[in-house]
Parts: sequence; structure tokens; C-alpha cells
Amino acid sequence: MEGKARARIEFETQPDRYRHWKLSFPEAYGGDVARLALDVREDGGLFSGYALKLNSYDLGVDIELADALTRIRFEHPETRAVVITSEKPRVFSSGANIYMLATSSHAFKVNFCKFTNETRIYLEEMSRESNIPSLCALNATASGGGYELALACDEILLVDDGSSVVSLPEAASLGVLPGTGGLTRLSDKRKIRGDIADVFCTLADGVRGKRAVEWRLVDETVEKSQFEKAVHRRLAALKARSPKKRGERRIDWRPLQAERTATESRYRYVTLRIDEAARVASLTVDGPTEDQPATMQAIHEAGVDQWALRAFRELDDALLDLRFNFPTMGLLLIETRGDIERVRQVDRTLASLADDPLVREILLHARRVLRRLEITSRSVFALIRPGSCFAGSLLELALAADRIYMLDGQPAPRMGFSPLNAGVLANYGGISRLEARFACEPDLARELAETTDLLDTSEAVGRGMVTFAPDDIDWEDEIRMAIEERTSLSPDALTGLEQNLRFGGKETMETKIFGRLSAWQNWIFQRPNAVGASGALTRYGKPERPEFDFERT
Amino acid sequence: MEGKARARIEFETQPDRYRHWKLSFPEAYGGDVARLALDVREDGGLFSGYALKLNSYDLGVDIELADALTRIRFEHPETRAVVITSEKPRVFSSGANIYMLATSSHAFKVNFCKFTNETRIYLEEMSRESNIPSLCALNATASGGGYELALACDEILLVDDGSSVVSLPEAASLGVLPGTGGLTRLSDKRKIRGDIADVFCTLADGVRGKRAVEWRLVDETVEKSQFEKAVHRRLAALKARSPKKRGERRIDWRPLQAERTATESRYRYVTLRIDEAARVASLTVDGPTEDQPATMQAIHEAGVDQWALRAFRELDDALLDLRFNFPTMGLLLIETRGDIERVRQVDRTLASLADDPLVREILLHARRVLRRLEITSRSVFALIRPGSCFAGSLLELALAADRIYMLDGQPAPRMGFSPLNAGVLANYGGISRLEARFACEPDLARELAETTDLLDTSEAVGRGMVTFAPDDIDWEDEIRMAIEERTSLSPDALTGLEQNLRFGGKETMETKIFGRLSAWQNWIFQRPNAVGASGALTRYGKPERPEFDFERT
Repeated sequence: MEGKARARIEFETQPDRYRHWKLSFPEAYGGDVARLALDVREDGGLFSGYALKLNSYDLGVDIELADALTRIRFEHPETRAVVITSEKPRVFSSGANIYMLATSSHAFKVNFCKFTNETRIYLEEMSRESNIPSLCALNATASGGGYELALACDEILLVDDGSSVVSLPEAASLGVLPGTGGLTRLSDKRKIRGDIADVFCTLADGVRGKRAVEWRLVDETVEKSQFEKAVHRRLAALKARSPKKRGERRIDWRPLQAERTATESRYRYVTLRIDEAARVASLTVDGPTEDQPATMQAIHEAGVDQWALRAFRELDDALLDLRFNFPTMGLLLIETRGDIERVRQVDRTLASLADDPLVREILLHARRVLRRLEITSRSVFALIRPGSCFAGSLLELALAADRIYMLDGQPAPRMGFSPLNAGVLANYGGISRLEARFACEPDLARELAETTDLLDTSEAVGRGMVTFAPDDIDWEDEIRMAIEERTSLSPDALTGLEQNLRFGGKETMETKIFGRLSAWQNWIFQRPNAVGASGALTRYGKPERPEFDFERT
Repeated sequence: MEGKARARIEFETQPDRYRHWKLSFPEAYGGDVARLALDVREDGGLFSGYALKLNSYDLGVDIELADALTRIRFEHPETRAVVITSEKPRVFSSGANIYMLATSSHAFKVNFCKFTNETRIYLEEMSRESNIPSLCALNATASGGGYELALACDEILLVDDGSSVVSLPEAASLGVLPGTGGLTRLSDKRKIRGDIADVFCTLADGVRGKRAVEWRLVDETVEKSQFEKAVHRRLAALKARSPKKRGERRIDWRPLQAERTATESRYRYVTLRIDEAARVASLTVDGPTEDQPATMQAIHEAGVDQWALRAFRELDDALLDLRFNFPTMGLLLIETRGDIERVRQVDRTLASLADDPLVREILLHARRVLRRLEITSRSVFALIRPGSCFAGSLLELALAADRIYMLDGQPAPRMGFSPLNAGVLANYGGISRLEARFACEPDLARELAETTDLLDTSEAVGRGMVTFAPDDIDWEDEIRMAIEERTSLSPDALTGLEQNLRFGGKETMETKIFGRLSAWQNWIFQRPNAVGASGALTRYGKPERPEFDFERT
């Protein structure tokens, strides 16, 4: 891929700028169902060199979907179900665009898949945590990533018109995997028999109608004339599962308006600085600079500008900027700045009002951003110095880091806990970062989460919260050497190392998708059998058949 | 690697032929402790082109270790603990030989790591299931795979002599991972804090003495003069944990004496046939051809020649032969032949005597072989025709396969269950293959395991036990087409597909090692940053530093 020649990718968008998705709340469904209809503009690719035929998608299409899901939660909190369908009568979606993949660098492919995986996981999280279940209304064929999007919905309805199928043709046609969670969801979510999944995943053609239901690939199939009626029926049933909503407060999801230069993105609370030569990115997160809302009403009124929402939104945008636009930055240094008690006050307020739907969404949003940090393939060091505010929700940034450096000097910096450290912001493994850190001392994890006193450096070291605590004299040198050493190592070895060490213990569907399925896909994406001159991805759409080295690994 | 030029690798050996390990049962430890001392012969590599310096190992060294572990269980059942140490005073082990890795093909590297991983898992299984715990007595430095071997033991004792360290220098020195379970065991077994593991795994130099204890990398460190005393003390404590053994029956683990040609390995009960042109291997397992021992005494007397042990030993050897000596065979067809009731009778006998230590070992052995089948990276189809005996323990072969084809004809073939289908032979996920197959219908899994009637084809289809059931007319064509189709697909995509679909649901340390850690290692092993002209593995031991493409993936 000509990554460097491509324009900087931006991750913010809004419905009136969507080119590929249509978001509506049809009266026909009662006004409280979000309808997401895919209608990809063939010439609307994020980059040039490929046409987005057959509702295939690239990163730009998925950025819109991710935006829509966020807006449903914050701008349309009355939503009780989502239906995803296609605006094109002949195809639901043919998945990720192959020509885009074939012309992309390995790093871009991997990051693209990671982002699309996150979006699908967000769809499932929205159902599980926010009572907004989803129906995939397959009015036409869904193949590859198109069917994987369907798999991320709670229910799949397939039209029975004699031609519409669901399929995962990746292995058979492209020599790669259904890597957007497809394999994992077949086995772990839909619990499809292994041999049936094997047959399905090695068929180029897909499965339609009653067989698709028998194989548990879809939940129901109905004739075209009955399709819309079935959509209505299923949406009504989905709505009946979630409690009627009332009084939810709408939040206006205004653009962040970051100021960007080639080496800096400056937001209100977050700054991302790029040191190209050193291959180091520095992220500074400011704590609240003014009093934050302390009541439900004030939280509702403060909306998108309250620190708890805005700071994490900015952080999210900065992480995506880093992932896609600065692929050679090997190390991310995270610092915080501000009033530690203000951070803890925000956390306590949110924790005490966690039953409120908006507060709940604010917390889930922060949780998603922290999880995005953890699966970002860059080394992360947290640096704790005087003036920092690593407490509660911001302490999670340090706990998500690979290492924590804390200055041992006068005045000593401090760190602190809040109720949000006890599990509300759990990692993808489903446990709090304190539990993950102290797997061998679960009591300590619980005790720390309840600690109200701040810890200075020596106390923090004593409780196992710090990796290294250099003193004033050594700090500069030690940090400099740690940075140099880290950035000198093989970036591939570090990615593998971090992705294993960050997820010890229990596995979930999400850790399996990122840690297991994606690792195999990354391996395959690198193999000559896929990307070599006669590999399957390279030869897709060309007259010659791929040629394989048949040695099995 | 010049795989084709290398001689066929054999997996059978015996203590008097060991070149690298010394197995003894020292009187000093009471005669019931197996002492495994590593003393690698530098010029004793399995292949030419590298010297096994510093107690580094290649596949040949590990074949001996695997053999020794099996013999401890069967030939020395009185064993109550194992101590692993080095016969060389200056080094315990420096791990896998780098020059061997650097000159090996990708496929060989991956298969070598898989085998060494299996051996380490067997060491842990021996502790957990057979009450033979292990102590690693590090009388000198253990680095890389050397320390990973220590991690597979229950306890690690490190000499405190000012120079002996434990280290995982793979990432820092070689640009790869500690891929023999090291990362997974740091986090999941020893529950070491993530940041400490991060530091440890990026240090080239390793950690010694008290810091190694503080970091939980070893359990104890003692001065050289106290070392042997500490070994005694720890072995006594380990022995005290396991019940005193008496009356265990020794089994003579005689060689299998397979008859091999270029395209066939013929054992007493197992035949492996290779069709190079079609890239298909066929494995036929015969059921018992004569009456099998039905009492504890008879089982003890029949020893290594009883079907339940011998057939699975032969299968194990055939699988390793296939993995290493026939790397391009993409598909393994499994058939059985014999008297279905005889198989079930053997199973029932073993199940009813499962408290007997020897019977327990026979069952654990079969379980290991079935697990080895499942992580063998070849597609596996089971073919069930009249005259076959897919029942009980042999039905597990079909359940381990990716697909089951059963002929729908007259006379109809039959399949059947035995008590061994209920979980005794559980897969690496820790559940029975019936449970794994019917994840969406757990009641059905239980019910089938208790079914005593045989199922003919239509009954087996009805119970979800069959993938396809072609009739007499279609069988030949359908099987032929399925074979052709399967072997035409990308071998890499199939490996990834199978390794994901075979392990749905719950993860264990073992599935994480094979499914997650190994997948990342495979990816890294393929990357130019490791194996390219200026990659870290390629440049190891040369004056030039490696050069990396720093794009992060």
C-alpha cells in the first residue's frame, strides 16, 4: 500500500455526511427502532484504486457504521432495537473489498480488521449492556464480512427467494480466514457443530433457505412477500425483551474539532504528539479543568462537553489517529495532568448514578476506549510525575500500560483509586485491570479498589502498583534508555508479546477474536499462499488460478 | 530447510540409545525419584549444519525427553517425583538451537515447536493426573526454551552463585517470542504481574538470585553449597504430596518395529499410507483382533501388547511420522476395521478399572494421542463403512475429525458409544468431544454418551453424528470430490480454519498455548523482521545488527 502517499484518515463523521449508510428511525417500526441500511457508493472508497461494488466495504464504510452505533446510544437513547439491512435489492453485502485488501500493506490490513472487529463487538455490547438488541434483515445475499456483520447481530432473518445465500467464501476463494470474528462466532456464539462449520467455511457458494436455518446459520427464512412482515414481528419481539424507555436524555454528539499538525493532534483535554525520529508518540490527558456536573440533571445538561465523556472521546480519536496515521510509532507514552481529586470526584458521581441510562452509557464508552487502548499494537508506558492525576478512571490508563514508571522524588507524585477501579471498566477478559494485575493476589486487587487514601511513590511501589521508580537524578536517563531500548526491538515480537501478556487468565469471545482468530489471520495475511505473486488474494478476480506451496504448517 | 534431503525422522528411542539425556533413579533420593539430566552432545544434532552448544536442543533432544516421560509413567510406575537438571556445570540449557531454527523451513519450525510444547504439557499432565510432580533444579543458567522447560515444572529452584540467571531473551535477541508456552505460563500458571513479565521478556540478560524469587520467576534460590540439600528437601516435600505407591505394575515399553516403505508405515493395528500425488494420507486403525484382557491381573500381564495401549502408541507414532516426514499431505482419511463390540468391551473393562494406576495411564495415553491428532495441522475426514468399528475410544477419532462421512447402504455400517465417550478422553479444552460437538445441545451429548445401542447410518444422521451420508451409488464420487476439493484449498487457510473451529468454547492453558501463543509465533516466524535477509533470526551470531521495518501491526 502507498500508506504514506494516502491522506490522513479521519475518524469523525456525522449522519449528514454518510456516503454509505442510511440511519433512520422509521415510523413503521414505532419510531424507536434504528434502521441502518447499507447502500455503498461504488466510487466512494476512502482511497483510490478500487470500486466498492456489491455493497463491499472499506474502512470508510465502517467508520460510518461505528459512528452510527455511537449516535444511536447517545443521540437516540429511546432506541429499543436496531435493524441492519441493505438498500440494494440484489445484495446485502459482499464483505470487505478484496481489491482494497490486495492493494493494502500488511499493517493496514491488520488494523482495518481490528477496527471492523471492534465495531461488531460494539454492536453486541450495545445489545448486552444497553438493551438495544439487533436484527439483521438479510433481504439478499450476505457473503464474507457481510455475513460476519450479520453474525454480530442477535438475530438473522434471511429472505427465501431461491437465490439469496449466506456464505463465508474466504478460505475457498481467497485463501484467508473469515477474520472479522466469523469463525469464533460460528462456534462460540451460534454454537454450530464443528463439522457443519467446516463444510460451510470451505464452500465458495454459500447456503440458502431452509438449510441455512437447519445449520443454525440464520434464525429464520421467509419468502420475499412475507419478509417485511417478519421483520416487523421480530422487531416487536426484540423490543418486548427490553424495558420501555422513558425520559432518556439526548446528547448532541458534536465534532471534537481537533487542531492537527503533522506532528500533533490537540484536543481540549488530550494531546497526541508524534516524534517521528524517535518513533515515540506521547499522549497527555488532562483531568477536569473546571467543576464537573454532580447531579443527574447537571450531567444531562452538560452533555457531550462534560469531561468524563469528552476526554475519553478525544482519547479514542487519538488512538485511531495513532493506529492508522502513524504506523511506525512503536511506543506510546501516557501522562496525565491535573487535579487528582477532581478526577476521583467525577468517578464517584458517575458510580453513584450508574443506574441512570446516560451515566451508564458514559461509563460503557470509557470502557470501550480503554479496551481500544489495550488492543492497540504499540508498547505503552505510563509516566507518573508530580502534577499528574492518575486516579480512578485515569489510573486505568496506567493499568492498561505495559509498564508504569513513577518518579521517586519530592514532592512525590500520587496515584489513587475510585469505585471505577473495581470492575466497571473491565478489560476484554471481563475482569478489572486490578484483578488482572494481581491474579496471584486477588485479595489485594479488592483491597486496593477500596483504598481511599492516595498512594505516594513508595507506598505505590509497596503495593505492587509500579514497575520502576527512578529518583530525580536517574529519571531522565532511565526513561531515555527504556525508550531507546524498547524502540530498538522487533516490532513484530513486541506485538506478539504484548498481545499475549495483556490477556492472561480467562478468555472471552472478544479475547479469542483479537488474540486467537486475528493472530491466525495475520499469519495467513503474510503467507505467500495469500499475498505472493501467485497467491489467492493476489490472483482474485484474475483468470489464473492461485498456486500454492502445499507444505502444511 | 532442505527438508526433502534430510533423512526420515524416527520418533522411537530408548534410554540406552539416548545421546543427550540421562535418566536415573538415584538411591540418594530414595529410588523413587526420576532424575533427568541434560547433557547435550554438541555433535549429536538430528541434522548436520549446527552444533548443539550450551545444552541447546533440537528435535532429537526433545524426542528423548518425550520418550523418558512416557517410560517414567509405564516402566517406572513407582516414581513419585521428577527432578530435571543439567549435567553440565555451567549451563542448564540455552533453549532451542538458533542455528537449527535459522536453517529450518517455516513448516519444520512450527512443527518442532508444537512437539516441544506437547512434551512440556505432558510433564504438567504427569503431575496433575498421575501424581508425579516435578522440580526443576537449575544448577546453572536457563535461558529461552531452557527456562520454558523449567516453567513446565511444578517448582523451580535456582542456584544463587552470582551468575546463574533465568531469562527469556527471544524478543530482545532474536525478534521472536518465547513460544514454547513461556508467555502463557508466566501469566496463567505463575500469575506474574504483566508489567514484570513485560520487563523480564524484553531483557536480554535475565534475572538472578533474590530478584528472580521476588518476581516469582523461580520459587527459591540457594547458594551453591546448599543446592543439593535444597533439592533433597524439595523432593521430599513433593513426594509427601503424592500418596505412597505400591504394587504398581511395570510395563516393558518395547519398540513398535513398524515396517516402513517410502509410502507406507505398517504397524500391528495401524497402517499409514501416503499418496504423494493426491497429497492424501490414509490411516487405518484395526480394532482388537483377539480377546483382550478383562481383569486387572490380565491387563498387567498383557502389558504393552494389549490393544488399548499398542493401537494408540502406533497411532501416535504414525501421526508424528505424518507431521514431520510428509509435510505436503493435506488431508488425512481415517478408517477403522474390526469388531465394534470388541472395542466397546475393551472400553468398558478399562472404564470399570479406571482406579488402577496402570489402567489410568493407558487412558491418559489414549487421551494424549487423540489430542495430538487434533492439533495436527492436516484436514481430517473420518470414513465410516461396513466393517468399521467406530465405537467408544475409536469413535473419538471420528469426533476429532473435521468431517464424518458415513455410507448409507446395505448392510449399513454402525457406530457406537462407550463409557469412554463421556469425558475420560477429553480434548485440550477439557471437555468431551461429544460436549464440544453439541455445544448447543448439552443434553444430547450426555444422552449419546449413555446410549448402549449401536446407531446405523440413518440413526446416526438423525442424532447429528454424521456430516454427510452418501449412498452406495454416490459414495465413490462424493468422497473423491470432497478430497479433491479439500486438497485444492490454501493449506494456510485450512490450518487457521481448523485450529479455530476445533477449539470452540472454553479455553485452557493448553488451547491458549497452541491456539493463541503459537499463532502469534507462527506469524512472527514468517515476518521479514525475523527471517528476512536482515532479520533478527537470520543475523543472530553475526556481526551486523538486525534491521527492522518498524511498521507496527
